[in-house]
Amino acid sequence: VRIDLNADLGESFGAWRLGDDEAMLDVVTSANVACGFHAGDPTTLKRTCAQAAARGVVIGAQVGYRDLAGFGRRYLDVAPEDLEADVLYQLGALDAMARAGGSRVRYVKPHGALYNAVVAAEPQAAAVVTAVADYDRSLAVLGLPGSALLAQARVLGLRTVAEAFADRAYTAAGHLVDRRREGAVLTEPDRIARRAVEMATNGSVISVEGTIVAVNAESLCVHGDTAGAVQIARAVRSALTDAGVRIEAFDTG
Amino acid sequence: VRIDLNADLGESFGAWRLGDDEAMLDVVTSANVACGFHAGDPTTLKRTCAQAAARGVVIGAQVGYRDLAGFGRRYLDVAPEDLEADVLYQLGALDAMARAGGSRVRYVKPHGALYNAVVAAEPQAAAVVTAVADYDRSLAVLGLPGSALLAQARVLGLRTVAEAFADRAYTAAGHLVDRRREGAVLTEPDRIARRAVEMATNGSVISVEGTIVAVNAESLCVHGDTAGAVQIARAVRSALTDAGVRIEAFDTG
Amino acid sequence: VRIDLNADLGESFGAWRLGDDEAMLDVVTSANVACGFHAGDPTTLKRTCAQAAARGVVIGAQVGYRDLAGFGRRYLDVAPEDLEADVLYQLGALDAMARAGGSRVRYVKPHGALYNAVVAAEPQAAAVVTAVADYDRSLAVLGLPGSALLAQARVLGLRTVAEAFADRAYTAAGHLVDRRREGAVLTEPDRIARRAVEMATNGSVISVEGTIVAVNAESLCVHGDTAGAVQIARAVRSALTDAGVRIEAFDTG
Amino acid sequence: VRIDLNADLGESFGAWRLGDDEAMLDVVTSANVACGFHAGDPTTLKRTCAQAAARGVVIGAQVGYRDLAGFGRRYLDVAPEDLEADVLYQLGALDAMARAGGSRVRYVKPHGALYNAVVAAEPQAAAVVTAVADYDRSLAVLGLPGSALLAQARVLGLRTVAEAFADRAYTAAGHLVDRRREGAVLTEPDRIARRAVEMATNGSVISVEGTIVAVNAESLCVHGDTAGAVQIARAVRSALTDAGVRIEAFDTG
Repeated sequence: VRIDLNADLGESFGAWRLGDDEAMLDVVTSANVACGFHAGDPTTLKRTCAQAAARGVVIGAQVGYRDLAGFGRRYLDVAPEDLEADVLYQLGALDAMARAGGSRVRYVKPHGALYNAVVAAEPQAAAVVTAVADYDRSLAVLGLPGSALLAQARVLGLRTVAEAFADRAYTAAGHLVDRRREGAVLTEPDRIARRAVEMATNGSVISVEGTIVAVNAESLCVHGDTAGAVQIARAVRSALTDAGVRIEAFDTG
Repeated sequence: VRIDLNADLGESFGAWRLGDDEAMLDVVTSANVACGFHAGDPTTLKRTCAQAAARGVVIGAQVGYRDLAGFGRRYLDVAPEDLEADVLYQLGALDAMARAGGSRVRYVKPHGALYNAVVAAEPQAAAVVTAVADYDRSLAVLGLPGSALLAQARVLGLRTVAEAFADRAYTAAGHLVDRRREGAVLTEPDRIARRAVEMATNGSVISVEGTIVAVNAESLCVHGDTAGAVQIARAVRSALTDAGVRIEAFDTG
Repeated sequence: VRIDLNADLGESFGAWRLGDDEAMLDVVTSANVACGFHAGDPTTLKRTCAQAAARGVVIGAQVGYRDLAGFGRRYLDVAPEDLEADVLYQLGALDAMARAGGSRVRYVKPHGALYNAVVAAEPQAAAVVTAVADYDRSLAVLGLPGSALLAQARVLGLRTVAEAFADRAYTAAGHLVDRRREGAVLTEPDRIARRAVEMATNGSVISVEGTIVAVNAESLCVHGDTAGAVQIARAVRSALTDAGVRIEAFDTG
Repeated sequence: VRIDLNADLGESFGAWRLGDDEAMLDVVTSANVACGFHAGDPTTLKRTCAQAAARGVVIGAQVGYRDLAGFGRRYLDVAPEDLEADVLYQLGALDAMARAGGSRVRYVKPHGALYNAVVAAEPQAAAVVTAVADYDRSLAVLGLPGSALLAQARVLGLRTVAEAFADRAYTAAGHLVDRRREGAVLTEPDRIARRAVEMATNGSVISVEGTIVAVNAESLCVHGDTAGAVQIARAVRSALTDAGVRIEAFDTG
């Protein structure tokens, strides 16, 4: 049994710090590094990539909408042609940073509102994966199981990686409970860690209705930008190790 | 006798158009394509790179200060570490665009105030060429003869290309006359074309003092963003061809 | 019979020019001046306001989404609280420019995707008009007849001004034909001018179905940023004058 | 004996938090609120202004260069005409926020690299104060004693307020020791507090050479964005109060 741990990193911007990237890099096996459109100035991206490379953490491009003021969390109705170019631009920029650090970008994970949009929006999903395929067909696409994003990526023959969220409540149908509902986001490290183990070892989780739902994921997302994030991530890693789960990055081309 | 013709392209941004890129791509052999920091949205950059590639025009990364409102024409006192990361970011982003169009970035030319800064500012010049070398040692660096930029590029073993300006007045010492002085910028197509031929065939030009000054350049810069720019560029190309000069891109690795 | 003519102005940004503001200011009676979020650098805004003031053209704040790359034409899912602050910020900034030019902002007109959003989106409409009322209750709100924007403005006791488009096709129900449908946007100056006269004198226009539909508008919008825009605007003004229509700004507090 | 305490506030941006504005607002009498160019999104500015107004803290416009990535700390060679418009824009925007909170902008203090530039750069200093005078002649200008900024403000008849820094080392000539020199910035709360009292009561401070130098300041700047900033600010306030100094905002028109 093995699982990948991924987290959003490189999200500082200029004078503004966000998250504890170095601490998180000691926990995760895959780093979703911001690409400058929703967060991440070039110096931060370069340093984060170098730190990831030094620890053998795999680097992914966390592409987002061009919206610094909204941190990429607000839906932006970008034309697919423009979104494709925006993703390609971010991907190339981050790959330059990764290569300067002695590594390279291995996968792409959309951020924030774009992540949510490409769950269902076919044209935006197609734009993202077309940019990925245009850049490098050996890149993987990381996203929500059942999303348009992963479906479109498979159509283009790209490697897809499904992820699950140990700190999010699931419905009996296997969907994430809406963030705005009470209890949608878990905060107790021990409970989150137990769910991570359940997901990694049984491929399942208890839904809010109390049923067991299947969660087939090669990667677990842990958050890096909230209070107590590092502590939770360490609890997840520790519990997985104790349960005999091998924590390592998913295979890429 | 051969010479390269280069021009700044891809400088539109969103709804704002600048210059006639397609017309200029039929004239030049090297395109200094903007990289998004001083100008150029990703869709424009992608299209411009594809158009350049389709015509066999060599693509260069026209890196600049992060200053859209100032079009990169205002000096910005960026720390060398940040400038290095900024250049690397732009270079990778544009290379992704060039590769999507079936080509790749072959050289780097700083834009605007950065171009002027790296004539003398050693730390900024070092930052630019370090980023270039970190990205790809086969890239050439295009700049002003005698500049710190070209000197530092040679120190790192990079290919350097010196350029001259057929539409700018030169002093007897071989420097450009300050833009703000009257007569510093020529506007008559015929006169500019004659100077281009003189530069390409004799390696010289008549200074404002009336003396002959040596101008050793592998490339001539023609402007694309002013009124009558395309007409001037065509006059230059036509005069060079009539004089038996081979117009082709400089060799790169 | 009287009518106001309004146009979007001040939409240049840095090195990028858009439209012929001075020519349009000789035609219109109300200037929707950009506020820097979708277009308009401060120097442009200051100059445009001064030019409008010098001609007695009334100044309105053309507020938009914070999206320079998209020119405010892409829907952005801004939280109402943030939109309210964004509008207030833009309004204050432009009013400073207008006052430096000896005038002041008299009305607010949303731009682009925000204009379209507040036709139906109650929370975004409420955010815009709350910002207007917080700033100055004597300001008018200019928008589409029947829009949530004008309804919400009336709830707050603000002066509302409905506008019509002489260059757009209308359905029998009195709605604008979708821009993407053929024939949705008219381009012949004479035909546009005749429709403007019909709108101003009869309060009606012929729909695409051939029926007569009522168009009650105190202002006609003429476009300033397309090819031939100035010519069309002049034709409209000239035809209105010939028909005995008084062209003057709507009354404000 | 009385003194004003001022601090930079409202410098968060979108998802990025900076400083503890509410805690600082309980300490200072004047808030230099960012205006969106170097920091501060509209929602943050609106909230900070409302919080300042609720506590009776005077609001100043902390205008800066248009450089979010550099937090306004990098010199930008803006043309005076553009700087004047940039300052006017920021001033109007912040005043709208202050007025929505029931207060208004009472003074202007340049930020970061602009603050440093207008110590000596006459054209940039003139641009700033011209914008201030154009907006509202009753506004005060806060800056370094002996600066071009204050000199130019006096020429225009504007109220000037000189400030001192209790946490900065001074030379015998009364200048600030360069930040990059060791010992230039003090960090011990007690020592900083004692210097604040000395400045407020005696109008002097001990220089790095050990001499007593005159420091005539109506306001003391306390920093809000560093570790321990709130603690230092509280120590300063407490020591001043214990020494019988009245802590209140400087008079404005």
